[in-house]
Amino acid sequence: MKPVDCENNREKRAAPPRAVSAAVIKRLPRYHRYLGELLREDRTRISSSELSRRMCVTASQIRQDLNCFGGFGQQGYGYNVRYLYQKIGELLGAEEHYSAVFVGLGHLGHSLVSSAMLERRGIRKLAVFETNPALIGTTVAGIPVLDSAEMETWCREKRVTLAILAVPREQALPCAEALSRAGVRGIWNFSDTELDLRIPGMEIENMHLSDSLLELCYRMRRRTGETT
Amino acid sequence: MKPVDCENNREKRAAPPRAVSAAVIKRLPRYHRYLGELLREDRTRISSSELSRRMCVTASQIRQDLNCFGGFGQQGYGYNVRYLYQKIGELLGAEEHYSAVFVGLGHLGHSLVSSAMLERRGIRKLAVFETNPALIGTTVAGIPVLDSAEMETWCREKRVTLAILAVPREQALPCAEALSRAGVRGIWNFSDTELDLRIPGMEIENMHLSDSLLELCYRMRRRTGETT
Repeated sequence: MKPVDCENNREKRAAPPRAVSAAVIKRLPRYHRYLGELLREDRTRISSSELSRRMCVTASQIRQDLNCFGGFGQQGYGYNVRYLYQKIGELLGAEEHYSAVFVGLGHLGHSLVSSAMLERRGIRKLAVFETNPALIGTTVAGIPVLDSAEMETWCREKRVTLAILAVPREQALPCAEALSRAGVRGIWNFSDTELDLRIPGMEIENMHLSDSLLELCYRMRRRTGETT
Repeated sequence: MKPVDCENNREKRAAPPRAVSAAVIKRLPRYHRYLGELLREDRTRISSSELSRRMCVTASQIRQDLNCFGGFGQQGYGYNVRYLYQKIGELLGAEEHYSAVFVGLGHLGHSLVSSAMLERRGIRKLAVFETNPALIGTTVAGIPVLDSAEMETWCREKRVTLAILAVPREQALPCAEALSRAGVRGIWNFSDTELDLRIPGMEIENMHLSDSLLELCYRMRRRTGETT
């Protein structure tokens, strides 16, 4: 991954004063989440040492990470929570006003459509695509459910940027190919198969819930070993 | 994270011949998933170079990682897919026959209860706990939906090991505390809040879907910057 380069930032919004490394970028969503929690607690400022305790990261790591942005924190005053939350949000592209469609309306698809996660990031939810005739024509959380057969044309016409894929594994690749032909630029993939290599030119984020379950099982097992 | 130590492995199953580092353990779920895909394709053997192409990891990284287990691969013959899949599965604790309960039956909870992910890892699904009287007494995917008020006693009596938490954020901490008192050893947390620091003695895996969404948005934005 190349470091962020402000010359590449079209709108010059949230342009970092110097390159932010891939490693820092990886950690930013977590900072963003903790800062969001602080905002909900009506906190206006936080010191690196308190943030350090909450996040289980050393205070010096926090200072190093957040100094990449330049000048958010001030010695002895701590960080301005709202400012830092917004700046990190902008850098992460959370304020880009993308438009999104959902593909697949099983329980997982349903829970993703109903979640406020996308709106909170400024992403508009346009439609859900399904193959099940009993669902086509209905609405879910105010979003119309359309026929999957129309997906490619519809997404091209509406200039959809992002698709959330929650279809059975065997349908994932043809769906992703259709979305790619329609000009969709990113897929958030919940279909439990890897798409990265197969759709060049598309940003794909594969969500593998089962990886996380396996890691939990491993840690539980290790702990049992330690205590017996 | 401490390296795996075979002396700590109660049943000596899948005991690695030497310590496996935390970094390798982190990568194992992904190997496990790819090997599962190969099994579904009826592949019996795979070379490190082919696995390398599929997984976008260097062949030397793969050899280094899998040699930690000792002797799975053979020069010129490649790896035995099923054997490696099983061994990694055992090491990850996937064959421990844990018993699990679900807490919260919103759409996400529903999709987790309905998923075959747990059974595939040998985890028994015992019950779902809900506060909604309209749902209590029903079944979901053959699993009984019980009253949350009974959760703590029930889990203690049934010696439940694992809980899947899909409740609103504000209910997560009291639920986790009750599960901890009941002797539950691990929580797979989908409630979009961090629980780690607050429940000592419990293994917690926090699933933050929104972190993954933010990272996708960031990568899409970066790509736009590069092409304009």
